[in-house]
Amino acid sequence: MYFHRQELQHKSKPSKPDALFARRLQEVLGGQYGEITVALQYGFQAWNSHLPGKYRDLLFGIGAEEMGHVEMLAVMIAQLLEKTPIQGAEDAAKADPVLGAVIGGMDVQHAIVAGAGARAVDSNGNPWQGSYITASGNLLADFTANANAEMQGRLQVARLYHMTDDHGVRDLLSFLLARDTMHQNQWIRAAELRAEGHEDLPVPSNFPISKEYREASYEYINFSDGAGAAEGTWASGPTPDGKGEFSYRAEPNKGVPMPPATQPDSRFYGT
Amino acid sequence: MYFHRQELQHKSKPSKPDALFARRLQEVLGGQYGEITVALQYGFQAWNSHLPGKYRDLLFGIGAEEMGHVEMLAVMIAQLLEKTPIQGAEDAAKADPVLGAVIGGMDVQHAIVAGAGARAVDSNGNPWQGSYITASGNLLADFTANANAEMQGRLQVARLYHMTDDHGVRDLLSFLLARDTMHQNQWIRAAELRAEGHEDLPVPSNFPISKEYREASYEYINFSDGAGAAEGTWASGPTPDGKGEFSYRAEPNKGVPMPPATQPDSRFYGT
Amino acid sequence: MYFHRQELQHKSKPSKPDALFARRLQEVLGGQYGEITVALQYGFQAWNSHLPGKYRDLLFGIGAEEMGHVEMLAVMIAQLLEKTPIQGAEDAAKADPVLGAVIGGMDVQHAIVAGAGARAVDSNGNPWQGSYITASGNLLADFTANANAEMQGRLQVARLYHMTDDHGVRDLLSFLLARDTMHQNQWIRAAELRAEGHEDLPVPSNFPISKEYREASYEYINFSDGAGAAEGTWASGPTPDGKGEFSYRAEPNKGVPMPPATQPDSRFYGT
Amino acid sequence: MYFHRQELQHKSKPSKPDALFARRLQEVLGGQYGEITVALQYGFQAWNSHLPGKYRDLLFGIGAEEMGHVEMLAVMIAQLLEKTPIQGAEDAAKADPVLGAVIGGMDVQHAIVAGAGARAVDSNGNPWQGSYITASGNLLADFTANANAEMQGRLQVARLYHMTDDHGVRDLLSFLLARDTMHQNQWIRAAELRAEGHEDLPVPSNFPISKEYREASYEYINFSDGAGAAEGTWASGPTPDGKGEFSYRAEPNKGVPMPPATQPDSRFYGT
Amino acid sequence: MYFHRQELQHKSKPSKPDALFARRLQEVLGGQYGEITVALQYGFQAWNSHLPGKYRDLLFGIGAEEMGHVEMLAVMIAQLLEKTPIQGAEDAAKADPVLGAVIGGMDVQHAIVAGAGARAVDSNGNPWQGSYITASGNLLADFTANANAEMQGRLQVARLYHMTDDHGVRDLLSFLLARDTMHQNQWIRAAELRAEGHEDLPVPSNFPISKEYREASYEYINFSDGAGAAEGTWASGPTPDGKGEFSYRAEPNKGVPMPPATQPDSRFYGT
Amino acid sequence: MYFHRQELQHKSKPSKPDALFARRLQEVLGGQYGEITVALQYGFQAWNSHLPGKYRDLLFGIGAEEMGHVEMLAVMIAQLLEKTPIQGAEDAAKADPVLGAVIGGMDVQHAIVAGAGARAVDSNGNPWQGSYITASGNLLADFTANANAEMQGRLQVARLYHMTDDHGVRDLLSFLLARDTMHQNQWIRAAELRAEGHEDLPVPSNFPISKEYREASYEYINFSDGAGAAEGTWASGPTPDGKGEFSYRAEPNKGVPMPPATQPDSRFYGT
Ligand SMILES: [Ca+2]
Ligand SMILES: [Ca+2]
Ligand SMILES: [Ca+2]
Ligand SMILES: [Ca+2]
Ligand SMILES: [Ca+2]
Ligand SMILES: [Ca+2]
Repeated sequence: MYFHRQELQHKSKPSKPDALFARRLQEVLGGQYGEITVALQYGFQAWNSHLPGKYRDLLFGIGAEEMGHVEMLAVMIAQLLEKTPIQGAEDAAKADPVLGAVIGGMDVQHAIVAGAGARAVDSNGNPWQGSYITASGNLLADFTANANAEMQGRLQVARLYHMTDDHGVRDLLSFLLARDTMHQNQWIRAAELRAEGHEDLPVPSNFPISKEYREASYEYINFSDGAGAAEGTWASGPTPDGKGEFSYRAEPNKGVPMPPATQPDSRFYGT
Repeated sequence: MYFHRQELQHKSKPSKPDALFARRLQEVLGGQYGEITVALQYGFQAWNSHLPGKYRDLLFGIGAEEMGHVEMLAVMIAQLLEKTPIQGAEDAAKADPVLGAVIGGMDVQHAIVAGAGARAVDSNGNPWQGSYITASGNLLADFTANANAEMQGRLQVARLYHMTDDHGVRDLLSFLLARDTMHQNQWIRAAELRAEGHEDLPVPSNFPISKEYREASYEYINFSDGAGAAEGTWASGPTPDGKGEFSYRAEPNKGVPMPPATQPDSRFYGT
Repeated sequence: MYFHRQELQHKSKPSKPDALFARRLQEVLGGQYGEITVALQYGFQAWNSHLPGKYRDLLFGIGAEEMGHVEMLAVMIAQLLEKTPIQGAEDAAKADPVLGAVIGGMDVQHAIVAGAGARAVDSNGNPWQGSYITASGNLLADFTANANAEMQGRLQVARLYHMTDDHGVRDLLSFLLARDTMHQNQWIRAAELRAEGHEDLPVPSNFPISKEYREASYEYINFSDGAGAAEGTWASGPTPDGKGEFSYRAEPNKGVPMPPATQPDSRFYGT
Repeated sequence: MYFHRQELQHKSKPSKPDALFARRLQEVLGGQYGEITVALQYGFQAWNSHLPGKYRDLLFGIGAEEMGHVEMLAVMIAQLLEKTPIQGAEDAAKADPVLGAVIGGMDVQHAIVAGAGARAVDSNGNPWQGSYITASGNLLADFTANANAEMQGRLQVARLYHMTDDHGVRDLLSFLLARDTMHQNQWIRAAELRAEGHEDLPVPSNFPISKEYREASYEYINFSDGAGAAEGTWASGPTPDGKGEFSYRAEPNKGVPMPPATQPDSRFYGT
Repeated sequence: MYFHRQELQHKSKPSKPDALFARRLQEVLGGQYGEITVALQYGFQAWNSHLPGKYRDLLFGIGAEEMGHVEMLAVMIAQLLEKTPIQGAEDAAKADPVLGAVIGGMDVQHAIVAGAGARAVDSNGNPWQGSYITASGNLLADFTANANAEMQGRLQVARLYHMTDDHGVRDLLSFLLARDTMHQNQWIRAAELRAEGHEDLPVPSNFPISKEYREASYEYINFSDGAGAAEGTWASGPTPDGKGEFSYRAEPNKGVPMPPATQPDSRFYGT
Repeated sequence: MYFHRQELQHKSKPSKPDALFARRLQEVLGGQYGEITVALQYGFQAWNSHLPGKYRDLLFGIGAEEMGHVEMLAVMIAQLLEKTPIQGAEDAAKADPVLGAVIGGMDVQHAIVAGAGARAVDSNGNPWQGSYITASGNLLADFTANANAEMQGRLQVARLYHMTDDHGVRDLLSFLLARDTMHQNQWIRAAELRAEGHEDLPVPSNFPISKEYREASYEYINFSDGAGAAEGTWASGPTPDGKGEFSYRAEPNKGVPMPPATQPDSRFYGT
């Protein structure tokens, strides 16, 4: 069960409206790595989890916080849109180049569709979608997805920080940056369920490795012509899964011939 | 520049056609974590890269291999579809329950749209989309995304392995499993660009950390009511970024009041 | 059968081209609540209808009118785009800030893809999609969807009215506003199929209400902490379906425990 | 802020696993009118609201309940999937027609992607998307959207009720049916913000009606050839907005001529 | 303006219901090359057209016919769904394998969402989308798109013909096949606007060909290793545009070096 | 198998950065008719092909070239974005109208998501999708799709040519124009597999034409009221398929009555 309290985790109030930045801020609300994604992603991972206890508690505990981040951003965006201009764009541009740029660069659906309100879309107006979520049932894989989500998310917030000098907005961003720092650290640490024996590399570790074509498991095969990759630590030495040694092949082996063209039922009317 | 050779990296030939499995195999061709995703993802990361040398060479070197995996799967799917039945489903079911199940469970667009050919879709027929790709310009974030992609991908291939007992198909899957093992190991190792000082935690590490709201950077705040998360290594001790100590807060602090409702221009005709 | 006449229901000619407004106008052509949606929505409701007679006639009668609205808007947009500039945006901005704003704020696909023509997209360039349509087979539900569509649509047209002062465009908008007024009134009135006994509240009314968990049917349960909702007419008094009395619960009852984590087949390789 | 408690609002446990029904149940979790839609829709309406007090409290109060419905369904689906078979479909069908039908009719991504877990998709596997949400800033329009959502939702749950005879599942459905009954009644009642003067018909009522082409505001124009629509209460008598009288026109007036073809810049290379 | 008549262009009545075929038939209603696509595609081409007269008349004349095809298919699908079963799938499969196959293979949203009605989706349940439409403003390009659409469409109808032996359905399909034959012939013939000097190859022909890198305009460059392509009529002899001679190059020239990695503003926090 | 060489087929280097043009250039990289589409389309046609020999060699040979075009455009876009500004948009507009226009008109995700890198999207930020691909298994249909793709693509490049005066960019565009010229000519010539008897009009030609409703196969039926279409060569004379004579009907025949409304199972709760 979810409960709501009419408070925000951190102050979320801009110094002044800014419809252009409102559009940009949509990215971390409704984009691929925005707060809707992590809120629902941690939820689905929890609902689908097979391990009771601290990992499921962790997912539930953070997932609800992220729903509050969705709310903080939506409330901030609505305030940034409070003075959204509504006049004709070309006339506005004639009268005032700055206003012209605002009208030209804002999210027009903020005005037409939402009447100066936030939306479940990214900064280019693409609707958020369920395929942004990863919840595979394997926690080592999923925690890696979570770490990535928090990295991409913090990267985007850091970029947004420089696209405004509004103190109120930067105050909120500095809070979100801190929480992303926490969540990056936490998912990286949580991935240490390896240490507890729940999972290991390569994921999934309990697939019988003898059924894998082991000759190809640790070989770097270079399908381009840059020689630099041979210098990487991925080209020699022991592998992170502790089960092999990297080797390097400068160009692919000869392959097997392309199979002959297929001949399906003539009533498919191919040629 | 890309070049093509009419060979496959590994044998890709089923023992017998199987339209039901052809549909399932689409997941690792055209799904969120399928081969089209990694082929183009590594490409975009390379084209957008800012670090010359071994990392870019690595991205180019693997990206082209993945295009060959797209091809191996497409060729396998076309062969699995070679005997796709075309008759009426209900009549087929009356005559032969097995055939009825096949017709009921196959991807109907394999027959109607592609005439017994592979498609750029997942196992539920959703078209592949560009938003599956992650290429942020920050390699530590992106290599984490890549490690996740190879984990999710190997997990899916391992599941698919049990959904068929066709020796030819399993042979191909065992090869793909091995390459996913290699690629997981490689991206995890490559993420050690931390050791070379290119990037660090939290990503992005060169954002001035003093601009972050540091009080909230290492605190686990529990928004659910499960006490288990307090036992995790993410709730106490030093943090993986080496810059702090985890702490635990059993329930959130009181927040700040919800800002008042916004009052936009009356010509937006809100209520 | 549909027939076409090379006339428009109302004059549709701008006083002057305006590529910025052309983009905005796409919202009511190809957006979620645009004319393509209602044209096809009323069509599908008619084709799927189970009640012969006046309701189906109504759906057919309005649906074809809406196809004409699609056409009026497409023709208007093409005319607004007639002088779409094609030069380089940055150079244009240097020479003339107004032109710079136009090039920056217009729909770039209007120029690149359609060569100064209308498209089946919304004002942010998202393609129209079939999931905008509601046609459930239950007319009371669907007429409520229709009333909503005409409300959202009229709201958007009213907002657009203030984003231009072109007399020709406003003339067309004033006509569309009037038709939306008609259609709002009509769907609200048509929802009175309740009076004729075809359907009732709660929809669907002929589901055996005894199979519903009646204790929870008329209780407002407050999952937030604002006390205001207790004052609403939805918190006490008789219910609109005539079958109960509203009551108010200030906070949720204790729930039932979360079920234990699931344990699927080990070959799914979960953790 | 949102908080989570590891309880469910109502018991959610199937009598036995049923992967086929798990797929069907996805519709009311992640479909156009599923629980994700209403949870986020009521959230965005609250965050964007302009009227403080009981209406905003109502939106917050119900929105959080709906997040709990998302959770109940996800947990139910995970349990229905607990015995998801993983073997080859065709072989299964040979051995056991029932198992063959299950494998043929289930959501294959439940197995391959989620490892027997719930997903943010509908019953055909289409990802949930942000464009399902309506939040316009005008509460009379939006409450009509909400009433429709609860009608479509209850209709779908009622249909699903007959697609299973599992007592545990039906118990949950009977609870959801009851809450949908409540929510239908509540939004219809809340739409009585008309009585309090916040809004009126036609929406938006404060657009100056003199700017509308009033001649066309209350006329039924029949663009099809069924005479039945003339008998409706939408073809004569006073209009629901209290501002006019319906009239009926059996076929459209002559229109205005189609404008001439446009002639854009020759560098668009049209023909 | 569009008008509707409550008649169908051709008889559209199945001999018996068939929910499985109803799903398949959705492809040519709401798929990429279904009737919604051509109806709206010809409409947009007409609304955007720059050439008055016979070409625009042609587009209007056919576009309205296609709207009638949408209707015929929707009505047929609704009839095929008239006896859609609603019981539990697994139980049905136990009682009757044929019924189990039907329930497993049908479009579950036909039942849950549309209540046994047609939908604006393809045979895999993907919603129709505006990006299926091509309307570039250049008629030679667009007529080629139209010819392709009618070819793909007829191919799909021909395949569907063998997936049913219902006389009523086949009767409708035979009519649609005939119209597709007409429309293929017509668009190929209409592409002869080349003969009238409106456009020519290469499209767009009035782009100054001297601005093109003419050395590369007629050379087949082989990026694969199959020698067969050298035998084609595209590898030697005069070109269809009448402006050159085909030549053949067995493998690509050496290219230019990859440009150095980019170095954007450090505040993007790349690596 | 695919191989990569760290070279470009043609020089791809702008004279100066231009974030506005970078957005526009995305259209021919990741749009409906961009290079990703043709690269994968020719790939799928090859993998699904049924005719061995020169046609398959052709598809493989061109498909790999198109992957190189994807790369050239991505590299060009990354360079155009090298100086992407990151400051606040409104402040920038105040200080410098040109900079304001740039920030307003650029793709904001180029900055926020990709850190000044290329993306797999079109010029309006819509992600590329698998449904852009056509690969039906019938080469005459598919070569027509290919010819159309190269026509639409060249048309877009020609328009883009005028949206920049950067010599480096125009140099690349002139090369792409030339290759599109080649590919248009080639697919039109390749469609002459008719001459070799592999396929003929109407596609698919080997569907037994006697099963088609031949009375309707060559008749132009005018569903609009423009008389001009009667003058076209599609209204009289022999048909391109060599199997009939065009005729003209000024308005449709009377149709058949609309079938009665359907009456599905009452448990679908329709009205
Ligand atoms: Ca967050
Ligand atoms: Ca791979
Ligand atoms: Ca309308
Ligand atoms: Ca609910
Ligand atoms: Ca047709
Ligand atoms: Ca190309």
